[in-house]
Amino acid sequence: MSRIKGYKFFGISCGIKKDNKLDLGIIFSKKNALCIAAFTKNLLKSNSIIISQRHLNKTKKIRCIIANSGCANTACGKDGIKNTEKVCSFLAQKLGIKKEEVVIASTGVIGEPLPVDKILNGIEFGIKNLSDKSNSIVDFAKSIMTTDTKHKFVVKKVKLKDKVGTILCIAKGAGMISPNLEISKSHATMLVFLLTDIKLDYQIMKKIMSEIVIPTFNSFSIDGDTSPNDTIFFVSNGAIKNSSLSKKCVENIFKSVQYVCKKIILKLLFDGEGVTKVVKLIIKNCSKKEAEIIAKTVSTSLLVKTAINGADPNWGRILSACGRSGVNLDINKINIWIGKYQVVKNGTNNFSSDYLVRKEMLKKFYEITIDVSKKPQSPFIYYTTDLSKEYVDINSKYKT
Amino acid sequence: MSRIKGYKFFGISCGIKKDNKLDLGIIFSKKNALCIAAFTKNLLKSNSIIISQRHLNKTKKIRCIIANSGCANTACGKDGIKNTEKVCSFLAQKLGIKKEEVVIASTGVIGEPLPVDKILNGIEFGIKNLSDKSNSIVDFAKSIMTTDTKHKFVVKKVKLKDKVGTILCIAKGAGMISPNLEISKSHATMLVFLLTDIKLDYQIMKKIMSEIVIPTFNSFSIDGDTSPNDTIFFVSNGAIKNSSLSKKCVENIFKSVQYVCKKIILKLLFDGEGVTKVVKLIIKNCSKKEAEIIAKTVSTSLLVKTAINGADPNWGRILSACGRSGVNLDINKINIWIGKYQVVKNGTNNFSSDYLVRKEMLKKFYEITIDVSKKPQSPFIYYTTDLSKEYVDINSKYKT
Repeated sequence: MSRIKGYKFFGISCGIKKDNKLDLGIIFSKKNALCIAAFTKNLLKSNSIIISQRHLNKTKKIRCIIANSGCANTACGKDGIKNTEKVCSFLAQKLGIKKEEVVIASTGVIGEPLPVDKILNGIEFGIKNLSDKSNSIVDFAKSIMTTDTKHKFVVKKVKLKDKVGTILCIAKGAGMISPNLEISKSHATMLVFLLTDIKLDYQIMKKIMSEIVIPTFNSFSIDGDTSPNDTIFFVSNGAIKNSSLSKKCVENIFKSVQYVCKKIILKLLFDGEGVTKVVKLIIKNCSKKEAEIIAKTVSTSLLVKTAINGADPNWGRILSACGRSGVNLDINKINIWIGKYQVVKNGTNNFSSDYLVRKEMLKKFYEITIDVSKKPQSPFIYYTTDLSKEYVDINSKYKT
Repeated sequence: MSRIKGYKFFGISCGIKKDNKLDLGIIFSKKNALCIAAFTKNLLKSNSIIISQRHLNKTKKIRCIIANSGCANTACGKDGIKNTEKVCSFLAQKLGIKKEEVVIASTGVIGEPLPVDKILNGIEFGIKNLSDKSNSIVDFAKSIMTTDTKHKFVVKKVKLKDKVGTILCIAKGAGMISPNLEISKSHATMLVFLLTDIKLDYQIMKKIMSEIVIPTFNSFSIDGDTSPNDTIFFVSNGAIKNSSLSKKCVENIFKSVQYVCKKIILKLLFDGEGVTKVVKLIIKNCSKKEAEIIAKTVSTSLLVKTAINGADPNWGRILSACGRSGVNLDINKINIWIGKYQVVKNGTNNFSSDYLVRKEMLKKFYEITIDVSKKPQSPFIYYTTDLSKEYVDINSKYKT
């Protein structure tokens, strides 16, 4: 992987998780970097999000992101905020920066107090080893994993007029995944660190965030459980010292960010807890709002998810989920395809071959198209997964 | 079981299901009986519901209920309505009654056409064996089972001024259970046959239905998937020839119906697909509408359901589900108890013993209380279940 300029990373084990697993990471920018964040809409907020919001309200420019796994830093007693501030202040002091220039993200079990001493020791040790080498990016990506089985990042080079910029996206998230984000709100077990060394205008960053990043990350669900820690940090440090961007370059950057986000989402989906299959839902011909409700109802239906798991051509469950979604639909106008096979025509059985539909459903990735024929509209895309026995296994003994 | 007067029953195998399992049942009233029905709100409707609605729109008095399992009679092609009419007409002719005096309920896989010939043969054979003996009630209860492991009915005697009446409730339903019923609408895999031999006024029946029966059956969920076949038939044939009812007698009947409904719901819950634990959710101090949203969000959360399955004291998932429910809450005012142990105090960890909470959660039945301290209101009760590997097992290979 060729390197992103002006950032240093580390990922270490400070003892939050057992068995010396990496659990503490830092991203450090050599100079001030513009930062824009999106947090979950869950009313329950991690202390990490509350503090990050406070800091970003004071300054748009940051120097450092600290992240930990193994503890959500959420609903963990009266000292939660104080402990989080202690971590940020200590880190700022050690780096010689202001505490407002630090943002923080956490993931893990809700309710456990942040083990401050372990983290301070970890910072002390870690910042001596900050590095811009590829393996430190890998270490950071590993340090934020919880039930993820693989660390995840995507890099994309962007050609500008005079320079070549880099977009790097590091993410984690396998369960409690049904992001519902908005700019500067709060709750997530999906953590996304979207970094670039291109110098971007704050208004352009905001546009990229609201038009590309948030819609893309809000378009998938693993288990329907929106976390109180979901966070996206989008950071631009301008380290490649590019000149001002032409309209074409900006377009190029938009496309590259979209590419990176889509790629990382598929990584998150395929590494979802117990996931064996990923389905692309395409909802056609109703308003975006209605399509979203239908997509979410279908994608969180236990009966649909278990049918996907078993490659069971039980399309009636999809039709039934549409019917109970709350969207005002004419059932007799609904058409449903699994892959290329139309299973529902005008709201009833199209008598396609169970054998062929099942064969399609045995694929690891396929499409389900639902056309509700309400009014012409561009298709709405949403990704979902199956529900397996392994998911139940993982989540019935997560804490104990 | 002492008998209910004026009804005859049968339950036989007509070959819809494999291995000679009972799959066709009839309830016959010796004289005209008032009938009031509630159907699911799912926009997808079983043909059985469409026809029952038509018949009940023509007459409030019925003579016969026919029910089948193994086929939902829903979204099963163009001939669905015609086939359903054929079954009702044939049955009416054989019994010498009007076809409008027949109502019908079906449960099973969506999309499969009703096997009309098998059903007509079954009717021909069955009506010769209609009986008021206890074992024919058991046979009927067995004939409507799908993934149920036990047949279910509850009987209650009601003392009136001059007579003793009987309330009998027969029900089925193990999966696709999250009833959302209203009087005379349509979708269910919960089928309920609530019969009495007491002569009731239609207005009183309507009151019992809307104030007791529907709220009670809408207050539980197994998998959150509201079925397109959910049906309740409430029938009164007046066979005990009671005199007009005093206010006290009516109250007594209300209470007895409530008793019967609550009892059958617990039977449905404990026999839910893969269910190992049942939880009574008590939502306190917010409006009924808000309480219902919170209860449904908590009770359909995969993370809460798997935690219940594993007796994992991971209360953060309950708090997080409240936070993402969409209800406007002050997180800092939320208190949560598991059994008698307060796990959340003022929105954060109350540091109760994981060991003791887990011990409570190992019980087959326990309470979770969520007090959102919004405004004084009587508690809202909702029942839910765990999500087990067995549920996934059952539902990933239901059709295939």
